[in-house]
Amino acid sequence: MKIKNKEKDLGKLSWEKFYSLPLNEKLGYFEKDGRMFDCLFSQQLSSQNLRTLFDLANKIRKVAKEKGGLDWLQTLLSHKRAMLYFVQPSTRTFVSFQSACYILGMKVSEIRSTSTSSELKGESPEDTIRTFSSYADLIIMRHFEEGIAEKSAWMLNKTKRPISVINGGSGKDQHPTQALLDLYTLDLSFKDKGGIDNKTIVMVGDLKRGRTVRSLSYLLQNYKNVKIIYVAPDYLKIGNDIKDFLKKHKMSFKESNELIKFLPDADAVYMTRIQDEYDINNESKNIDYSKFHLKKEHMKLMKKSAIIMHPLPRRQEIDVAVDNDPRAMYWRQERNGMWVRTALIAYLFRIENEINRY
Amino acid sequence: MKIKNKEKDLGKLSWEKFYSLPLNEKLGYFEKDGRMFDCLFSQQLSSQNLRTLFDLANKIRKVAKEKGGLDWLQTLLSHKRAMLYFVQPSTRTFVSFQSACYILGMKVSEIRSTSTSSELKGESPEDTIRTFSSYADLIIMRHFEEGIAEKSAWMLNKTKRPISVINGGSGKDQHPTQALLDLYTLDLSFKDKGGIDNKTIVMVGDLKRGRTVRSLSYLLQNYKNVKIIYVAPDYLKIGNDIKDFLKKHKMSFKESNELIKFLPDADAVYMTRIQDEYDINNESKNIDYSKFHLKKEHMKLMKKSAIIMHPLPRRQEIDVAVDNDPRAMYWRQERNGMWVRTALIAYLFRIENEINRY
Amino acid sequence: MKIKNKEKDLGKLSWEKFYSLPLNEKLGYFEKDGRMFDCLFSQQLSSQNLRTLFDLANKIRKVAKEKGGLDWLQTLLSHKRAMLYFVQPSTRTFVSFQSACYILGMKVSEIRSTSTSSELKGESPEDTIRTFSSYADLIIMRHFEEGIAEKSAWMLNKTKRPISVINGGSGKDQHPTQALLDLYTLDLSFKDKGGIDNKTIVMVGDLKRGRTVRSLSYLLQNYKNVKIIYVAPDYLKIGNDIKDFLKKHKMSFKESNELIKFLPDADAVYMTRIQDEYDINNESKNIDYSKFHLKKEHMKLMKKSAIIMHPLPRRQEIDVAVDNDPRAMYWRQERNGMWVRTALIAYLFRIENEINRY
Repeated sequence: MKIKNKEKDLGKLSWEKFYSLPLNEKLGYFEKDGRMFDCLFSQQLSSQNLRTLFDLANKIRKVAKEKGGLDWLQTLLSHKRAMLYFVQPSTRTFVSFQSACYILGMKVSEIRSTSTSSELKGESPEDTIRTFSSYADLIIMRHFEEGIAEKSAWMLNKTKRPISVINGGSGKDQHPTQALLDLYTLDLSFKDKGGIDNKTIVMVGDLKRGRTVRSLSYLLQNYKNVKIIYVAPDYLKIGNDIKDFLKKHKMSFKESNELIKFLPDADAVYMTRIQDEYDINNESKNIDYSKFHLKKEHMKLMKKSAIIMHPLPRRQEIDVAVDNDPRAMYWRQERNGMWVRTALIAYLFRIENEINRY
Repeated sequence: MKIKNKEKDLGKLSWEKFYSLPLNEKLGYFEKDGRMFDCLFSQQLSSQNLRTLFDLANKIRKVAKEKGGLDWLQTLLSHKRAMLYFVQPSTRTFVSFQSACYILGMKVSEIRSTSTSSELKGESPEDTIRTFSSYADLIIMRHFEEGIAEKSAWMLNKTKRPISVINGGSGKDQHPTQALLDLYTLDLSFKDKGGIDNKTIVMVGDLKRGRTVRSLSYLLQNYKNVKIIYVAPDYLKIGNDIKDFLKKHKMSFKESNELIKFLPDADAVYMTRIQDEYDINNESKNIDYSKFHLKKEHMKLMKKSAIIMHPLPRRQEIDVAVDNDPRAMYWRQERNGMWVRTALIAYLFRIENEINRY
Repeated sequence: MKIKNKEKDLGKLSWEKFYSLPLNEKLGYFEKDGRMFDCLFSQQLSSQNLRTLFDLANKIRKVAKEKGGLDWLQTLLSHKRAMLYFVQPSTRTFVSFQSACYILGMKVSEIRSTSTSSELKGESPEDTIRTFSSYADLIIMRHFEEGIAEKSAWMLNKTKRPISVINGGSGKDQHPTQALLDLYTLDLSFKDKGGIDNKTIVMVGDLKRGRTVRSLSYLLQNYKNVKIIYVAPDYLKIGNDIKDFLKKHKMSFKESNELIKFLPDADAVYMTRIQDEYDINNESKNIDYSKFHLKKEHMKLMKKSAIIMHPLPRRQEIDVAVDNDPRAMYWRQERNGMWVRTALIAYLFRIENEINRY
């Protein structure tokens, strides 16, 4: 009861006040009946949520192996419509989510450019979102404006017909389902090797501006005794906020600017591309990023059981010749994303029991 | 028989001659078996058509409340394909129609930009439309060129495989389904209050260039003793053609430039934004439109039973704080649009009896 | 066994070496179990493949005539997802393929602009394609880069999860499904007149740069005693490579720059527009293309049983007044395209027996 009252109070705050609250104080506002209702922040992905979603993804994947199973899955949300509002360029995340919707039988509408939208006529982003909620049962959005997914969910939760919002990534901001698929890939890969606990994860590249390594670092607190090794050019080192977080949670980490040195220790190598779209003065040009490229000759340095991950798209960080190595996990990681996003949508619509009973 | 012959004759006219005919002389050309076949003009929405569509929308809405019902609706037109050809920016109308198609199980193709289209290669708009008719069973179109929906329907009706065309709005021209959803909203709102007859409707804003208020004015002739009050800046007053029409049909109307004065009389307040996209010399800049904004403090002036409508998108004409007032009807109005468009499509495919029997 | 080994060897070649091989040496690489797996080149359309596809298209068309049949067809690939990657402007081919997917119940994702895609972030086209293959079961693509469909299929066939690629046209390059629908139209039109054998086909217009006439010329070798008459402005005559091919296969052809002269002989007149998008120095401006326009007054010169074809879009090559002539086949040709593309997809997913048994 107290929690409910608290959430009611949260609903009375102005957006500015609400937005400035620490995350842990407002996560409850995006839940219903003690379950995640909107998926906006990596921080919502508790141990328990992660386990539920991974198991559900595994089950869905199994059911989907046969035509009959996939046809059955499509009956589950055949009466629901999703709006994919992706006004920031994205192929992967868009198609991945769209496929996830299709797997559950949802009908999908897409807006992929503000130039086809009413924002042109002076409509506020909130009104645009509220409009979508008139027609759809779920909004999945990627927007260049930071905080807009949160604001959308905040606003819709005050209406009489709230629908779930999934944050598909926004600016340098949150991208919770990327974190979800990264962890799902680790979970799957280490299934027969004791899980993610006790593993050594080497994260490589633009750690300063890459949101995936940041989210992943946070979420690894859900596992025991994980060792993180950050390998980055000096200018692109992981932020102090992350390091403070890891220290606070007594998580083990090291920093280096030498890729080769820690490859033999890695259970997983997480490669990232340079995020030069966030350059202010073309500073990326002065960085020798080639030292942070994974090449065919590096393969022999790595454990046989290790895996190589990448959020994609890649440029030259991973040599195409590495693709044929059985440890290259990034293409499967992509596909894992589709399955775990399917699980997330199924969870938000509360059909996980139905699926698990199949 | 005579009517058929007359339509045959119409079919022999050149497009230019056909186009210049008065509307009432050519409406029959867009009917088959005495039923509307293409939906192009508000003038096609007779009392009888309106009643049929509103009742059908109510029924569809009821059936759709349960998964089983919505799944059943989706079987009705599962074998049909719709082409949404929207080359003028639009979010609301597009997604609304797309959702309507989905509700009836139609498969949807969309062209949302002439830059992805063969018009680039020098194809005429008519050939583009005829191409769509090769693949689709229904064309819903919004185009910047006035008269193009009519021309499309005119041309297709001469082919051996005519399909229905719905005008989703074009330029300053017709937008019949907006009129349809506006009237449906009035009909629903006044269901237990004697219907639309005898009500007072206050229309506010850019009445000169807003096509919605113009269409609505025309269609209110279908109801008894409706009083219209036009509230607009001097420069944006309702056109003389409309006033002449109202006089001819002995409909009651007043004009004013003071919003507050008539709010207490209103059963419905229909707000509109300034249509500055039709400015010739930035004349909108010189108009103080803020006097035609509905604000929270106005709420106390209005009847408890009144409703507030807006075709959306809005800018500042309605204060966001008004959204929480139970009389704010515009978001429901939007959703009504989806249902009544579903009804329209069902009607064009002649499945209304099947639905009513459910 | 030898063939398999040979294909294995092909798989070891670098892309550059593979690409430079003569077509007939590499077609096997795009087959599985002796069946076409990727549809990339007109040259893959053997007599036998053509017959199978035409018969299948006829059957599908028949089944689709009734709602029950079309609903049944939609169950066949309801568990499959197609990616339509069309970054070169196209309406017709895009919607035709999308409709074909819908007829078989496939779910469709579309990317229609590189500006919404990860290529913006520096991703290679091959990585983009591989990403699509993570989510989809079929890729249909139109790309401005020559050879990219072949490269995509080549690359995917080396992965553990190869999926079929259909070339939807690229640059001046191949457009095999256009050839397919052209031949299907000829086959249908001459069904009761002894088939395509012994017919006279007059091809008119920009024969130098139009890929459809080139492909069609190649494929007519599959039929006996066909006579081709090429009618073109001097500057736009058919290429010597085609003439050499025809001579080598002892196929009969003539050349002319007078349209009227050969119209009385034609069983089919294949009109094409001027392809001025391939101009280097606006050379099209100096050509009097009006001599290669088909007009109403030409109709009386043609056989009653002849047909008029055009790959569309058209400009002025065919007078709109000709559309009403019963010999005008181009709109039906378009629709034939949808059906034969449906057949092609059905064939690639190996469901033709299931359909033929219906």
